[in-house]
Amino acid sequence: MLYQKTGKDIEEGMTSAPMFRCVAIVGVGMMGGSLGGALRSTGLAEEVVGVDRDGEALTQGVALGVLDRGTLSLKEAVQEADLVVLATPVASIPLLLTDLAPLVGTDALITDIGSTKQRIVESGERLFGGRFVGGHPMAGAPRGGVEASLPDLFAGAAWALVGSQQPEPETEHVARLTALVHALGARTIYLDSERHDRIVALVSHLPHLLSFAFADTVAGSPDPDMAHEMAGGSFRDLMRVSEADRPFWDAIFQENRTALLDALTAYERNLASLRQGIFQD
Amino acid sequence: MLYQKTGKDIEEGMTSAPMFRCVAIVGVGMMGGSLGGALRSTGLAEEVVGVDRDGEALTQGVALGVLDRGTLSLKEAVQEADLVVLATPVASIPLLLTDLAPLVGTDALITDIGSTKQRIVESGERLFGGRFVGGHPMAGAPRGGVEASLPDLFAGAAWALVGSQQPEPETEHVARLTALVHALGARTIYLDSERHDRIVALVSHLPHLLSFAFADTVAGSPDPDMAHEMAGGSFRDLMRVSEADRPFWDAIFQENRTALLDALTAYERNLASLRQGIFQD
Repeated sequence: MLYQKTGKDIEEGMTSAPMFRCVAIVGVGMMGGSLGGALRSTGLAEEVVGVDRDGEALTQGVALGVLDRGTLSLKEAVQEADLVVLATPVASIPLLLTDLAPLVGTDALITDIGSTKQRIVESGERLFGGRFVGGHPMAGAPRGGVEASLPDLFAGAAWALVGSQQPEPETEHVARLTALVHALGARTIYLDSERHDRIVALVSHLPHLLSFAFADTVAGSPDPDMAHEMAGGSFRDLMRVSEADRPFWDAIFQENRTALLDALTAYERNLASLRQGIFQD
Repeated sequence: MLYQKTGKDIEEGMTSAPMFRCVAIVGVGMMGGSLGGALRSTGLAEEVVGVDRDGEALTQGVALGVLDRGTLSLKEAVQEADLVVLATPVASIPLLLTDLAPLVGTDALITDIGSTKQRIVESGERLFGGRFVGGHPMAGAPRGGVEASLPDLFAGAAWALVGSQQPEPETEHVARLTALVHALGARTIYLDSERHDRIVALVSHLPHLLSFAFADTVAGSPDPDMAHEMAGGSFRDLMRVSEADRPFWDAIFQENRTALLDALTAYERNLASLRQGIFQD
């Protein structure tokens, strides 16, 4: 009952009139579960329906109070939804959009929360026109699974709304998503998909890659146990990032490889320049 | 009066019988000031004397309560000390040890809190034999200056005690420093200086170098303002480390360049391997 409305929420003005009658969340992991929990605790949706291939995640999601109900059927989940949010790993989203097209109502708004945007936005706009607006909340946690859902994951985070062209905040569908993002306590940033992918390669994908390489270097060092014993703040900060789920991030790196290669190349140039400053004397 | 003993400290058992009559802290910056504050608040020293070339730091140190008194004279500071702690930048410590030799009492214990150890331990043991034991608390803060002193900087931190050979915890001088470190709430780790410098190159100097290169990459990107707006946790963790004082760290990198080069070379190999995994397909 973690995410139920409480008297305290209402006193503090954290609940709102429902913005959506039925929100379908496709993919009930840590991110989808956190979104469901936030929607339910703020009262922004009359009903939150989860869909996943993993029935156990649905049962857990309902038990945790982040979903009103769960279903294994994409059709059943989305047919009455006025908002569909795709919260599955990035590589699966373009195909899911295709599956969704014949099932979803003609008035439904469709978005996603994937970490890369070019291929997703291309599919979404081709299939749904302006009813699809890509999204990307800059928030996460090292461990996945609906049981890791965090009710306040999005509070204070940036949340990019993304189209093939930079979305206009005042157009109908973008305005509705903007209001939702703000009601969840996050900040909207409007980006075209090429710029989005270039920025996140630098601010998110590169730091994860650098941290994974650091964790590999510690693990392969002659004295890894002593390294952990001698850990200070700088070590812990890099290791914290490296605890993220590797296969999940490998898929993101693959998806955004062009922009990530550019960011990595710039990084390697800067690192080489620092190396030269230290070792030339 | 930040670091004065309080009734609350005494109730909580945070004060101790004095272990040292007079502790001289050479170099009154953030680290030296934090040590002075910790010594005064725990009652481990009857008197804490600071010495610095910057008279303003001494005045501030006394006003903040991290020193009992300050002096510009190394001789005056150390002549009655039974513990001398060198808390200046690493490059200055070997020369300071030479200056100290004719001034310090023959019973005084001498240590330092520098981030590298081989050259410092070599000088200290040559001049003072077993009365010198190198030290390195794995704690810090981005900004220096005595005004940035933190009363609980060392709580829970690892604190390496270092000799040319791994120090024996039960020998007289090492036992006294061990008791002091534990009384400050830190954990002792005993290392020979070559192993120490190799470990810290990996767990502290390398993460700082990687973070500096990351900050340079963001600053040199085509869209740095948007990068900051889109910042998530992984970005903030790397940027936090990069806020450390660069000239201070450059001197540490220079001092430990051999071990840092090894760590950096291993890192670059791991990064290249991750790059290949992403871009080979």
